[in-house]
Amino acid sequence: MADRVDIAIIGTGPAGVSAALTAKIRNKTLMLIGRKHLSDKVRKSHQIQNYPGFPDISGEDLAKALSDHLEKMGIEITEEQVTAVYAMGDHFAIQCAKEMYEARTVIIATGVMQGRVLPGEEENLGRGVSYCATCDAALYKGKEAVVVGYSPREEQEAEFLAEVADKVTYVPVYKEETGFEASNIEVVHGVPKEIRRDGNKSVLVLDGSEIVSDGIFVLRDSVSPGQLVPGLETEGAHIKTERDMSTGIAGLFAAGDITGTPYQDAKSVGEGNVAALSAVNYLAKK
Amino acid sequence: MADRVDIAIIGTGPAGVSAALTAKIRNKTLMLIGRKHLSDKVRKSHQIQNYPGFPDISGEDLAKALSDHLEKMGIEITEEQVTAVYAMGDHFAIQCAKEMYEARTVIIATGVMQGRVLPGEEENLGRGVSYCATCDAALYKGKEAVVVGYSPREEQEAEFLAEVADKVTYVPVYKEETGFEASNIEVVHGVPKEIRRDGNKSVLVLDGSEIVSDGIFVLRDSVSPGQLVPGLETEGAHIKTERDMSTGIAGLFAAGDITGTPYQDAKSVGEGNVAALSAVNYLAKK
Repeated sequence: MADRVDIAIIGTGPAGVSAALTAKIRNKTLMLIGRKHLSDKVRKSHQIQNYPGFPDISGEDLAKALSDHLEKMGIEITEEQVTAVYAMGDHFAIQCAKEMYEARTVIIATGVMQGRVLPGEEENLGRGVSYCATCDAALYKGKEAVVVGYSPREEQEAEFLAEVADKVTYVPVYKEETGFEASNIEVVHGVPKEIRRDGNKSVLVLDGSEIVSDGIFVLRDSVSPGQLVPGLETEGAHIKTERDMSTGIAGLFAAGDITGTPYQDAKSVGEGNVAALSAVNYLAKK
Repeated sequence: MADRVDIAIIGTGPAGVSAALTAKIRNKTLMLIGRKHLSDKVRKSHQIQNYPGFPDISGEDLAKALSDHLEKMGIEITEEQVTAVYAMGDHFAIQCAKEMYEARTVIIATGVMQGRVLPGEEENLGRGVSYCATCDAALYKGKEAVVVGYSPREEQEAEFLAEVADKVTYVPVYKEETGFEASNIEVVHGVPKEIRRDGNKSVLVLDGSEIVSDGIFVLRDSVSPGQLVPGLETEGAHIKTERDMSTGIAGLFAAGDITGTPYQDAKSVGEGNVAALSAVNYLAKK
């Protein structure tokens, strides 16, 4: 296991980047967990007109400016998928697909979840429903699985799963064409409506049909905050935060889209900054 | 009187600039009131390391980037000193030194006040204490006045006052040398401790001496929020705000240092953005 850091920041959008920069200049040990090429949401923005100091900048260019800033400050991104954060009293355990990490404080800046939680999804988590193919693929050796993918990136996860499972049924919840290499992946189009457990089988209910399998993977860019951090106080898809970006859990802070509207880059960098300084204050008091 | 605008933004630091950019892209009529060369606080920062996207930028360069952004968006700064904002029910009246303006909503982004309110200062406002030489100089024809100046910029105000008054005593509350042209201005060094009214004279108590005059001008870069907006709920030098940057007065929002610590550029741009969008929502509901 890696060393326990002062501040772990989850998410590499504007909020996470801003939090990391401020944690760094306050001389805290930190880890920044997320996608190395930063969040898709920033990168895919067309023109951003109201990020102060950069008139009419493209998402691609803003992402590059943020990446360059991280690099100049010597901040590296740990490319990992966080599946859960557990409050352990004096520290947090951060469960990732590949490894487990520890931190004294955590800032959640994962952005807002795509799509809604399906009826039956949360109740059956760990009972035929999983959020992480990398973590749970081994359980599907010789079995059949369904993958509900919310972005083309999830196709790689399905390919990986198909190396282990006998058969994978892939339900894309996006408009782009799918493109699979594995012959044991079947693509089914439809709108997911519900997840049901039936004996030791899992049933994905679509609009007009059902798919029965041994288990269902629901793969989104980010999971809902209540699933990510058990016990966290949420308001729908958002984490409830105070003015200092603290949450109901001591030492846990949140910033950016996940705290609520407006979903704006300027708001996110502001909240990331405040969350980092609140984490610094929290560490000083301990 | 100028036309009534949708959103008046008071203050040209990062919070005010950010609010103006967002108000503009939401197609609201707006006025941005403050110093044309932006806030001194930004301009005089040495190096800013944690404004995301600009690694290790000087205050001068950040101010320039913000100015350029305003210019590209066609936003002009109204160079005025706001002395009071009055809630009139369906709109606000903004009393400035030179003119009166009207707005449907107001965003206060004036930064945090320099120095503390002196004992006796607020109680005697309008009774021998004034915050605006341009406004009240005419009352001092043939009389004697004291000016407590919190920055070298206030020396111009004292010069203006000296054109009307018989004598001006100037107490600088800063380290820079003073430089006056008028022969009827006397500079007295000392630490202001208290303001007292004695009959129809005003007394400025310094550490070790007292100056008696017809009236005292206390000139700071910004006045305290409670003085600026009668009836506003404050917490010390700060305006109490909700997560959406609303204040206790409907249609009045605040952003930046004036809402409390941390005093950081990133926090300010975030709050300016949120305040502008909250003002837009408020206007939509009306």
